[in-house]
Amino acid sequence: MRQIKLQDYQVSIGNAWAEIQNTIDFNGVSKCFVLVDAMTKEYCLPLFLEKSQIKPDGIIEIPAGETYKTIETCQRVWNELFLHDADRQALIINLGGGVVGDLGGFVASTYKRGIKFIQVPTTLLSQLDASIGGKVGVDFLSLKNALGVFNNPEAVFINPAFFDTLSDRQLKSGFAEALKHALIADRSMWDNIKGITDLRTIDWEPFLEESLLIKKRIVENDPYEKGPRKALNFGHTIGHAIEGVLLETEHSLLHGEAVLLGMIAESKIAQIRGLLNENELSEITNHLRKYVDFSFDLQQRDMIINLIKGDKKNEGDKILCTLLNAIGQYAINQDISLEEVEVGLIYLEEQFDYSNV
Amino acid sequence: MRQIKLQDYQVSIGNAWAEIQNTIDFNGVSKCFVLVDAMTKEYCLPLFLEKSQIKPDGIIEIPAGETYKTIETCQRVWNELFLHDADRQALIINLGGGVVGDLGGFVASTYKRGIKFIQVPTTLLSQLDASIGGKVGVDFLSLKNALGVFNNPEAVFINPAFFDTLSDRQLKSGFAEALKHALIADRSMWDNIKGITDLRTIDWEPFLEESLLIKKRIVENDPYEKGPRKALNFGHTIGHAIEGVLLETEHSLLHGEAVLLGMIAESKIAQIRGLLNENELSEITNHLRKYVDFSFDLQQRDMIINLIKGDKKNEGDKILCTLLNAIGQYAINQDISLEEVEVGLIYLEEQFDYSNV
Repeated sequence: MRQIKLQDYQVSIGNAWAEIQNTIDFNGVSKCFVLVDAMTKEYCLPLFLEKSQIKPDGIIEIPAGETYKTIETCQRVWNELFLHDADRQALIINLGGGVVGDLGGFVASTYKRGIKFIQVPTTLLSQLDASIGGKVGVDFLSLKNALGVFNNPEAVFINPAFFDTLSDRQLKSGFAEALKHALIADRSMWDNIKGITDLRTIDWEPFLEESLLIKKRIVENDPYEKGPRKALNFGHTIGHAIEGVLLETEHSLLHGEAVLLGMIAESKIAQIRGLLNENELSEITNHLRKYVDFSFDLQQRDMIINLIKGDKKNEGDKILCTLLNAIGQYAINQDISLEEVEVGLIYLEEQFDYSNV
Repeated sequence: MRQIKLQDYQVSIGNAWAEIQNTIDFNGVSKCFVLVDAMTKEYCLPLFLEKSQIKPDGIIEIPAGETYKTIETCQRVWNELFLHDADRQALIINLGGGVVGDLGGFVASTYKRGIKFIQVPTTLLSQLDASIGGKVGVDFLSLKNALGVFNNPEAVFINPAFFDTLSDRQLKSGFAEALKHALIADRSMWDNIKGITDLRTIDWEPFLEESLLIKKRIVENDPYEKGPRKALNFGHTIGHAIEGVLLETEHSLLHGEAVLLGMIAESKIAQIRGLLNENELSEITNHLRKYVDFSFDLQQRDMIINLIKGDKKNEGDKILCTLLNAIGQYAINQDISLEEVEVGLIYLEEQFDYSNV
């Protein structure tokens, strides 16, 4: 077991099952609830209950999928908490991927002005993305994470044991976050990552620790995302818009897949600005492409551009974006034009148009 | 003009109109919105815009009344903010009573993980109750303030000029908070208050300052309501329940009226426990009664008791209540029984049953 200590809490990596009960006891919890979605209820909850030996006062279930990361789903969960007489000393354990963690964290942060919560992210993506940083919230009007607060959990427990429940597609998607951490902040980690050929054979505990330490360094410098933390938005300006537009279609993407596409498009923008050279762009594109197994729908370019205009990371009329200066280095608050976004999207289409193959 | 300095912001009392624009400028605000309800739009907004000389980017209106202090109303306001392209540097000015301030503060605290807000409470109640303490939120399932967060505004501007827009009933209701501050913490303020015969002739600025300084002292000792701040819940355990039960009826109460009733009932409980003597109880009852102009509906006793069981201030199966030890002194976390609640309610009924007069 490894531990990363943050200012208010710690992230335990590996088999820290007994620690979960200790955290509950330490906090004088009155009632304990486990929030799951339909998938993690089936695939993760049995392992979790068996190993942790926790006897929850209630299991609260929400439907699986990003389309349910809404205020309406929050209302269902708040309602369940009231029906179970959850008081201000109650605690929620969020067992699932990003939707369960983000939504459950927001529900806990607002129920009776805030009750405690523990994050047990079960996907690679959520282990890397949501363990550190205190962002919780839901989508609104097809804008990702449009509503939410900054609030830290009591503790985070991440365990690669849950990866056996993930499909190859989910595992690859989650790997996007590790690729992002390396690209923005650590050239040597990027060089190591390039050598990985099979995600099923990685020694996960040291790998997760290395990747999370990058995120910790960035977040602790800027907890409320006033400046440097925007580094973590690399790939997200375009990625979120692609994800939002495709959400309602048959080609809906996993979050990590959208970020992979966003990182490729935004690297193209960095290249046309002369921040990256052609070799670096090719190296990034070729490596990220390995983790995305689909063709990219060419029809949606205008809708994607429109959605970017409403992205919450923008200020005033500017489209602000984090670009790479080089592999392992970033520049925040880059004011990009809609024309540049379009060039990035066209580049993406060229990479992912399998229809002519 | 008087000012009360708090840790993160200050409360200006009186004609501080120019300061509002200064606060907006100081914060580098991108767009400024004013939230009003149907009443304050008509009666307060013209004065506010004329005096402050602010040119808002949008006026957002919600229906007036506690029944609209809901997540559904929040969704309307979040939606308006998105339609107006409000970004993370936007600011909301909440111009109105407790509903506008609490709901608007919650909307701001959660929109894009938090934008800034300024409180301009227009009722006596909200000036005394909501200026200090950082509580924002909405009702849920007829439970008052069941959802929310702790979050401070950038500044609070309170001005007795708005009292001309209040009915006598609203002014009396608001006075409940001042009576509460005196009863829990300041015997000499209570003695002064007893001499007041006409609320329309009070010299408000020093009075508001004195009352708010009591609240400041209590809140700063305990910002997240772990202990001493519960003093401010005096009258609220029973008062909230009465308010909730009568909300849907033709006898619906103003919040301050409910708190006045709650303080009388809870003072009766203190008296049967021997904390207050009979003279103190009579003195409190006779003085508080002056501010409530109606008969009390005897039919609802069981419903009130049921609602108290679900109150968020309770922990586990206990009903926790703040009681007076004496006039000017409080005791928090008093574990009261449903039988005691019933005795308090019966006492109330005796005081307010005008049907036999």
